[in-house]
Amino acid sequence: MQHEISNFNYYNPTEIIFGKNRIPELKDLISTDKKILITYGGGSVIKFGTLDRIKSALSKHQVGEFGGIEANPTFETAMKAVELIKKEKYDFILAVGGGSVIDATKFIAAAVLFDGNPMDIFSGGIGKGTPITSALPFATVLTLPATGSEMNAGSVITFKEKQAKVSFGSPHVFPTFSILEPEITYSLPTRQLANGIMDAYIHIMEQYMTYPVGAMVQDRFSEGLLQTLIEIGPDVIDEENHDYNLRANFMWTATNALNKVLSPGVPQDWAAHQMGHEITALYHTDHARTLSIVLPALLKVRKEEKRAKLLQYAERVWHITTGTEDEKIDAAIEKTTAFFKSLGAPTSFKDIGLGEEVIEPLVAQLEKHQQTALGEHRTHDLAISREIYRMALN
Amino acid sequence: MQHEISNFNYYNPTEIIFGKNRIPELKDLISTDKKILITYGGGSVIKFGTLDRIKSALSKHQVGEFGGIEANPTFETAMKAVELIKKEKYDFILAVGGGSVIDATKFIAAAVLFDGNPMDIFSGGIGKGTPITSALPFATVLTLPATGSEMNAGSVITFKEKQAKVSFGSPHVFPTFSILEPEITYSLPTRQLANGIMDAYIHIMEQYMTYPVGAMVQDRFSEGLLQTLIEIGPDVIDEENHDYNLRANFMWTATNALNKVLSPGVPQDWAAHQMGHEITALYHTDHARTLSIVLPALLKVRKEEKRAKLLQYAERVWHITTGTEDEKIDAAIEKTTAFFKSLGAPTSFKDIGLGEEVIEPLVAQLEKHQQTALGEHRTHDLAISREIYRMALN
Repeated sequence: MQHEISNFNYYNPTEIIFGKNRIPELKDLISTDKKILITYGGGSVIKFGTLDRIKSALSKHQVGEFGGIEANPTFETAMKAVELIKKEKYDFILAVGGGSVIDATKFIAAAVLFDGNPMDIFSGGIGKGTPITSALPFATVLTLPATGSEMNAGSVITFKEKQAKVSFGSPHVFPTFSILEPEITYSLPTRQLANGIMDAYIHIMEQYMTYPVGAMVQDRFSEGLLQTLIEIGPDVIDEENHDYNLRANFMWTATNALNKVLSPGVPQDWAAHQMGHEITALYHTDHARTLSIVLPALLKVRKEEKRAKLLQYAERVWHITTGTEDEKIDAAIEKTTAFFKSLGAPTSFKDIGLGEEVIEPLVAQLEKHQQTALGEHRTHDLAISREIYRMALN
Repeated sequence: MQHEISNFNYYNPTEIIFGKNRIPELKDLISTDKKILITYGGGSVIKFGTLDRIKSALSKHQVGEFGGIEANPTFETAMKAVELIKKEKYDFILAVGGGSVIDATKFIAAAVLFDGNPMDIFSGGIGKGTPITSALPFATVLTLPATGSEMNAGSVITFKEKQAKVSFGSPHVFPTFSILEPEITYSLPTRQLANGIMDAYIHIMEQYMTYPVGAMVQDRFSEGLLQTLIEIGPDVIDEENHDYNLRANFMWTATNALNKVLSPGVPQDWAAHQMGHEITALYHTDHARTLSIVLPALLKVRKEEKRAKLLQYAERVWHITTGTEDEKIDAAIEKTTAFFKSLGAPTSFKDIGLGEEVIEPLVAQLEKHQQTALGEHRTHDLAISREIYRMALN
């Protein structure tokens, strides 16, 4: 059966301000009649001087601060910012950080103007999944290339007590603009750099590794980004290597990995993400490291469903041209796994000190969060998830 | 000397509405309090029923029409639409056509609100080059994939008496939205399909074929689009081949060829376009066919300046891996020329019945329009243009 490219809408109004020393332009990017709340995470934006540079650029503006947003940002923390904004009447938010701070800020921007209980912004067993109709305007200064959140309209929030990571999205939560200074990444440690490479890689795979619909541009773009990550990955994780182009390519690849250029009209999977979210929720593993554990196992278990695209991936991304179809596919999965390992990432539960005992709790989590029909065909059920978690044991 | 990726801003707020039977959605895409002027070219949008479909979708709206916009749209014609809009108080324009109608509409939208003589919107020996500060909102229904005008903020207008084609650009003239129905291309004749393929191909080359700055994403995206055009070109020009994916890939490639995804932070050339515009201005040759004449000659004459990128192009786009550097480059230029020929395009002045007599008039045109420092290094002067025109004789 020949598939066709689906109808799609493509829209991304976020302005990217990319390069060296762009933070001073904040002065003119936000009108001075705005009262700005700066949101951030731990102390690294203070320690490395980013917050000071931002406050200096905004010296003519009214500015407040809200720090302490966690990795895997929680609903509870975000709601404190919502209260602060309502009380102090901020009308613009500037998120300074990586995906966690930006995702939290998207939710905060939406919740401030939401008519009802903000939990209802989410579905997945949390709330009613009510679409938002407006959000406070916000922008970002990206400090960690990885999630693409700086140029998309999606967000993932953690509900601690419910041990749940759930997402929402809306065109109302595109950042107005995002400042991307590659030099800001010079202060990142190897582990975060590696996480960023893997996160971007697997974002691309979620949009690419499904079944072919003949979308030639989207496929070529995905393959180009994957090849770029494979080429630069080993150098990027050297935290002492401050080559400007290297970090600029890393940053721009991570943004393009999830800003919609790859996905118009093509099927998407996202099962690795759902399965990984549950690992983080129960065992607090870094998001990217859950993906490097799940993806190789998922590709093995879903090999038949993904056969045509796995072959294309083997040939175009890894240049594997000899052997039978199965040999090519197996070699491509092997190379993918080796690439993750070369970044210092775990590729099995064993690598993070977990074993068989995790499988049923993780499957129960998926069931609780209604993740029972995943994947590009919606046929990836709990039994398949169980098989994948099992395949990922060693 | 190692070059770096330049600072850039990336912004493109146009919403793309792509796929089958999207025109009926016009009903909800434009608010009913808008008074809409539909702009179009010759009769093909009437003949093939596109205008009827649009008017049917807009049956609840107040709608007027302005037809007769030429290929290579003129200032004089566009100014008639400006007068009509002012007189009848239209507040939204819907361009239905290819690059000519959309480019004209961009100028019309800008000129309606321009404070002063609209000629001053242009530089290049025409006017003062005054930046516009606003424009009437407009959208497009694309009927001819080629120029990318449906998703960018540039426009080229012809001044007939001055024998000049000049451009302007502004973030104010991004279309609000553009409807892309691949099936609309089923009524196009081979010559227009071939022109579209070549126009897109050379748009990519203008942004790619310069000198390397290490922009890995931009390079991979460009190479992916070039490969796509090489793969689909021969089938696209078969006007009887109504394969949906084929035309969808053609349409989406042409849009991406000039919607800014290829150009952030990289040098650009555009000399082939400037040199081609003069051929159209004097001899009325189709825009795309001027490019297929100029580009091969330009690549030969500028081989040293473009050496590194020509080698990359030879290897990655044409898979030429054997021979000396010069042999690879020559083979790549030869393959490019053969590709244009395979589309039925002229690749020399001789192919369109012109000879040596054209050279000095064309060089004089470039001088008159202040096109004396072209190319990625601004070192492409009149002597080099003369050499390229001469190289293109046979």
